[in-house]
Amino acid sequence: MSGAVARLASLNSQVGGRARQSPSETANVENADSFESADLGLIGLAVMGQNLILNMADHGFTICAFNRTISKVDRFLANEAKGKPIAGKAVDDWIESLLPLLERGDIIIDGGNSHFPDSNRRTRYLSAKGIRFVGSGVSGGEEGARFGPSMMPGGNEEAWPFIKDIFQSIAAKSDGEACCEWVGDEGAGHYVKMVHNGIEYGDMQLICEAYDIMKRGLGMTGKEIGDTFAKWNKGVLDSFLIEITRDILYYNDEDGTPLVEKILDKAGQKGTGKWTSVNALDLGMPVTLIAEAVLSRCLSGIKEERSIASTKLEYVGRVNTFEGNKEQFLEDLEQALYASKIISYAQGFMLMQEAAKEYGWKLNKPSIALMWRGGCIIRSVFLKDITAAYRKNPDLQNLLFDDFFNKAIHEAQPGWRDVVAKSALLGIPTPAFSTALSWFDGYRTKDLPANLLQAQRDYFGAHTFRIKPEAASAKYPEGQDIHVNWTGRGGNVSASTYQA
Amino acid sequence: MSGAVARLASLNSQVGGRARQSPSETANVENADSFESADLGLIGLAVMGQNLILNMADHGFTICAFNRTISKVDRFLANEAKGKPIAGKAVDDWIESLLPLLERGDIIIDGGNSHFPDSNRRTRYLSAKGIRFVGSGVSGGEEGARFGPSMMPGGNEEAWPFIKDIFQSIAAKSDGEACCEWVGDEGAGHYVKMVHNGIEYGDMQLICEAYDIMKRGLGMTGKEIGDTFAKWNKGVLDSFLIEITRDILYYNDEDGTPLVEKILDKAGQKGTGKWTSVNALDLGMPVTLIAEAVLSRCLSGIKEERSIASTKLEYVGRVNTFEGNKEQFLEDLEQALYASKIISYAQGFMLMQEAAKEYGWKLNKPSIALMWRGGCIIRSVFLKDITAAYRKNPDLQNLLFDDFFNKAIHEAQPGWRDVVAKSALLGIPTPAFSTALSWFDGYRTKDLPANLLQAQRDYFGAHTFRIKPEAASAKYPEGQDIHVNWTGRGGNVSASTYQA
Repeated sequence: MSGAVARLASLNSQVGGRARQSPSETANVENADSFESADLGLIGLAVMGQNLILNMADHGFTICAFNRTISKVDRFLANEAKGKPIAGKAVDDWIESLLPLLERGDIIIDGGNSHFPDSNRRTRYLSAKGIRFVGSGVSGGEEGARFGPSMMPGGNEEAWPFIKDIFQSIAAKSDGEACCEWVGDEGAGHYVKMVHNGIEYGDMQLICEAYDIMKRGLGMTGKEIGDTFAKWNKGVLDSFLIEITRDILYYNDEDGTPLVEKILDKAGQKGTGKWTSVNALDLGMPVTLIAEAVLSRCLSGIKEERSIASTKLEYVGRVNTFEGNKEQFLEDLEQALYASKIISYAQGFMLMQEAAKEYGWKLNKPSIALMWRGGCIIRSVFLKDITAAYRKNPDLQNLLFDDFFNKAIHEAQPGWRDVVAKSALLGIPTPAFSTALSWFDGYRTKDLPANLLQAQRDYFGAHTFRIKPEAASAKYPEGQDIHVNWTGRGGNVSASTYQA
Repeated sequence: MSGAVARLASLNSQVGGRARQSPSETANVENADSFESADLGLIGLAVMGQNLILNMADHGFTICAFNRTISKVDRFLANEAKGKPIAGKAVDDWIESLLPLLERGDIIIDGGNSHFPDSNRRTRYLSAKGIRFVGSGVSGGEEGARFGPSMMPGGNEEAWPFIKDIFQSIAAKSDGEACCEWVGDEGAGHYVKMVHNGIEYGDMQLICEAYDIMKRGLGMTGKEIGDTFAKWNKGVLDSFLIEITRDILYYNDEDGTPLVEKILDKAGQKGTGKWTSVNALDLGMPVTLIAEAVLSRCLSGIKEERSIASTKLEYVGRVNTFEGNKEQFLEDLEQALYASKIISYAQGFMLMQEAAKEYGWKLNKPSIALMWRGGCIIRSVFLKDITAAYRKNPDLQNLLFDDFFNKAIHEAQPGWRDVVAKSALLGIPTPAFSTALSWFDGYRTKDLPANLLQAQRDYFGAHTFRIKPEAASAKYPEGQDIHVNWTGRGGNVSASTYQA
């Protein structure tokens, strides 16, 4: 392949999707026969695919579009395969069917939510065949896809010069900069998109908790809650998700009551949020907020059992109703949401930092923050501050060590603590607010109670422990695996590979 | 194979371990040459293997013991392979090396902490070769192995009649009943042991949080904290782990101060607790307490970063020191620990129930509770109450619906809430206490805020939602996937397989 972008096959992971409607605008979208003259071929015409095509057409690119209409596969994906990782199989099948049509140097782009180990594998597999593979995260929902998504491409870097122009043209812009940069090798783009989605889970859960506290804790109406989100959207929480929450709370059904109250409280979770949590567990990183957000969705999912439980388990406590200054509490709530969000992003960046080390990727933290600043679901003023923090110091060890966020978290603390405490007393669940605060209080603690845990493990399983450097002695030297006979019974043999 | 136990090869997963010392007692332990005349051959002589042999010898069984001494493998397991799932490989290798020595009908027992999917696979693989495989959880640490562990065998049920006598003889007894029953097909035994270990992680974390609150929140000495655990060990919390915590707090170093305070607060977590959390995520079950316990170990693991953080992140709050009645608060703390423990076990049994459904196992809940009553690390009076609950009603949907635990959780609530609230205000991390309370408050809630989350997903990604049955209308019928055009912009195309 020579020259500029001659022929690209873009695999959109909506591969299992079905277009319920053809693109309503035609622009310079061509049919499959004109494949050779298009800048890019796109497969998959569900909501994201359609809007990406229109977006590219707006920027003067010629796209060849294709959609599978094998209804058998659709039914399979919607039924037997539901929630199972069959999407990955579909991407592999598409790649195999494209291969005979491609020449060395051609580029395949997977623009869906593929799992990053699959993208690692595909990059290597296709590279061996001379095909350049790009796995790109695309975020922004239907509006983003249409008018400018956040794009996170990774894979075979040789492809980047050929696709950079298209990607950065159609991507969202933030202060004139495209929210799209090359992320890194192999599955790095999909990895960063996965963490983005995990953070999105967290942001949504935090907003839900704030809404629940206002609704059930303070007894506010939908309109009053909407007004509060409207106000918050002008401050530190200014973001797409707060904005749409305001809109949602203002959206009334025909009877004049908020439609949202009629929506079934059962959320799915078999996707990227789960992957992020499993990856955090694999890497041993304490990404607690996303995990709680995913598990909250699981709890929402067992609605029938909760309905029974609600008749058997009553609130008992020493505080029955909210007492105190409601205005002050709403300010505290804003700070609780802000502080918890800071923790969630700090955890997310810690995870990406560890992943880069583990998988041998060079992840550029300022670029990641920039990519998330516009176009995507978690876009916010907040991410502008994160971009600034990492641009000022690309080697920043933790977001909480940056002056801006350090000040912010200190200022937010008193209100945050009160919100967690009052919610516990009132019986309103705050899994994400609470875990964020516990994590913060643990993170800022030099000596956690895990010393007792290590003693327990040595007591019952002879698992050994180490001594704190400052407490080392001749009897208990630093850096040695020590076993103590705590009871006077038991032997001197210690365990080896057993991990309790 | 005919007759009773003629030849068994027991694979103890301490396969990667190295005996630092030979068994100090010999009893009727024979060497490898007498293999044919032994009741059972045992491979692996680390702490668990040695003590199991002595235990079996006490009960009149003849054991042929073998230990690998290939130091190269040891070094590999201790270095390059550390924390990696190489133990699984070692078990497979042992199986392969045993196969040529076995006859049809022979039994291989894996008594280590193997991952249950491996045991599923091995049961099937060996069954096809006419060999009966048993994967058995064994819990109890070195004391348990020596004087009576909890044993959780599963796999090929044809093996059970041959090994039942040995297993139930050496297992712990609780009120005269052996803490060992056949668990179920394939990896069911290792699955139940995995959940046991996850619950163990949770119990230990809860105790650590109580200790931390007493130490840093109330400023109590090691002796005072030990006295509190001693007192708790006579009440509802009466258990092995509370007992050893008391002992640990009473164990002073030569300088007269508690040794535990000198132990490095860095705990490992690459084992069964992680597996339990990942499995909960896979099955979509909200097992929050074990997840927080695992993630707390991860946070303990980044000690160096915490040390830096402790110099940059200060406590800010409206309550600086504990105020109130300390005696009352200690009673509240006991109730908080008790209630959180009830939640953790309720979550664990929910997970096993879902696993039985998913994997097609018949798990007997009263038997599981009985197996955990004695011998193992989580043995307690509490598990006697759980056994009673499930014996009274084997189909009990949730532990919290049993009269005894229902009453207990209602009585514990006020104190539990105060402990979580005060800890948040004081800056002491309580990830497990807090998540338990949030889960309880979510579980007993018919209408969670996930309705807003579903609205958000439909707003930005056209993911559709469903309507609450009681709010269904002609416009929004029950059981249909509904998409609303929240803004007046956007299209009518909904997303399909995308899972945000």
